[in-house]
Amino acid sequence: MAGKYVIGIDIGGTAVKMALFDQNGGMDHKWSIKTSKEENGKYVLDEIAASIQHELQEKHIPLTEVAGAGAGLPGFIDIEKGIIEFATNIGWKDYPVARILEDKLGFPVALDNDANLAAAGEYWKGAGTDVQNMIFITLGTGVGAGIVLNGNLVNGKDNMAGEVGHVTVKPEGGRLCNCGKRGCLETISSATGMVRGALEHIDEAEGSPIYDVHQRGEEITTKDLFAYATSADPYCAGVIDHAMYYLGLAVGNIANTLNPERIVIGGGVAAAGDDLLHTLRAHFDVFALDKVKKGTNFVIADLGNDAGVAGAAWLAKQHYMND
Amino acid sequence: MAGKYVIGIDIGGTAVKMALFDQNGGMDHKWSIKTSKEENGKYVLDEIAASIQHELQEKHIPLTEVAGAGAGLPGFIDIEKGIIEFATNIGWKDYPVARILEDKLGFPVALDNDANLAAAGEYWKGAGTDVQNMIFITLGTGVGAGIVLNGNLVNGKDNMAGEVGHVTVKPEGGRLCNCGKRGCLETISSATGMVRGALEHIDEAEGSPIYDVHQRGEEITTKDLFAYATSADPYCAGVIDHAMYYLGLAVGNIANTLNPERIVIGGGVAAAGDDLLHTLRAHFDVFALDKVKKGTNFVIADLGNDAGVAGAAWLAKQHYMND
Repeated sequence: MAGKYVIGIDIGGTAVKMALFDQNGGMDHKWSIKTSKEENGKYVLDEIAASIQHELQEKHIPLTEVAGAGAGLPGFIDIEKGIIEFATNIGWKDYPVARILEDKLGFPVALDNDANLAAAGEYWKGAGTDVQNMIFITLGTGVGAGIVLNGNLVNGKDNMAGEVGHVTVKPEGGRLCNCGKRGCLETISSATGMVRGALEHIDEAEGSPIYDVHQRGEEITTKDLFAYATSADPYCAGVIDHAMYYLGLAVGNIANTLNPERIVIGGGVAAAGDDLLHTLRAHFDVFALDKVKKGTNFVIADLGNDAGVAGAAWLAKQHYMND
Repeated sequence: MAGKYVIGIDIGGTAVKMALFDQNGGMDHKWSIKTSKEENGKYVLDEIAASIQHELQEKHIPLTEVAGAGAGLPGFIDIEKGIIEFATNIGWKDYPVARILEDKLGFPVALDNDANLAAAGEYWKGAGTDVQNMIFITLGTGVGAGIVLNGNLVNGKDNMAGEVGHVTVKPEGGRLCNCGKRGCLETISSATGMVRGALEHIDEAEGSPIYDVHQRGEEITTKDLFAYATSADPYCAGVIDHAMYYLGLAVGNIANTLNPERIVIGGGVAAAGDDLLHTLRAHFDVFALDKVKKGTNFVIADLGNDAGVAGAAWLAKQHYMND
């Protein structure tokens, strides 16, 4: 393929983000459309294709100049066949996303899941551009991860690599997880897990500002928890510390196994920035081997919402551009 | 390099094993020499070089037909510089093994640690020849590992990848490990850890044949423990089960992270064969995600003591042969 451009597509439950990258990896243009949920997402791919065709026309770029596209979405993906097995947030089941998009667009399309592509995006254009071995951890409703080793994305046998949210950190007496197991990392260290942790002993929290938030009937957020922890509220500090202890354990064990150079923290909770990294690092240092911890540094993700489209474009570049 | 042969060198504390492989990966010949410990291993590399030169002469193979050699040894290795940082069993410290051997032999030499090369050997010639994603776990005095993903050995930033023996499986109240941390996998699931486990409550073991072994002043071995466990001795079965529970936890978590297709168990304890795999698998299945465990199978290593030389030859082939 002699195409000069690649396109990244990040298909989320509320919006589809897209971006056009030139052959040097420069982002030429980005845009997004709403994800139409009607009839189990029947029209989503039509609308993506129409939107890409429209943008290319506007830019006077013929289809032959596009080497290919990458698309990321949350769920179980058969990357070889280009099929999404389940996308609960849209309604797709065993849906051949790659083939349908290829038919509509006339250039090849590769798929992967959103956590892997966010990792690839940070590696290509963000917090990991200067390293070859990187673990990207996303802390949001769940805990996800993408792993880059020797500059390659790790997918594993069935594209299940990176399911770090389901690493068992509390083998006995742990909370039940959505996956059916107990004591999974994401039951404690995700945003949901932290809020659950805050609520579990809220009766003992009198005097803490988070107790008042709860008394007023407002929702507890991780933003509040980090803010109060930073201003020395012991209850909130305890909740955060507990979550970061288990994240430090899991990430320390991953580091002893893979010896990454960089751990990148992304997702909504990453907004806590240095307060998060500081606490996480302290726990990590207890569990990682000396030489492993000396070689590892922690940073917050760089690209925010653009990581997914960047990683999707990187995937297309890897597959369809010779450089 | 147009060499037709590669040489694998496995440098152990008591013997150095060597083998010659042809360009098709067939092992032409293997031999070994004693590791001479005099003056902190000063003569080891001389003797290795002389032995290789001798064997090549015997076989009428000129040096120009050797593409290169790989050498494996236990300890911390700077693979880029070809230096062993510490080899406690021989006495080397910051010793430029690769350069010295290259000077003596006239062909290039690459280094890696023994656990990585045993994994590579099983991947190339043994229990992993039909897969691309494999974790090799060696259970002996310690617990080591080598990781192959997408057909490549994982080294990490400072060649510390695979330090699975130091994954923390008991973050609270765990035993002190040689590394200085507590609750490391190898304090429980190595041969040493299992024997330690058997001795810890030996006073409560009356009626168990292992109690009698201990009373007679004989050493407890993992061979005994597995044999008595298999013949339904509850004390020994409990000791084995405890060790395999924590190994299953650690390997389950690694599998959730990397989604390997095969777990290969090697090292002295692997002699227990199916008895070991059966117990390990049962615990693993509790901790691995459904789709991860469906994709993973467990086998005992194939190559025994030849894994190291095979992996070392594979390393030379990767580096110095174009195929």
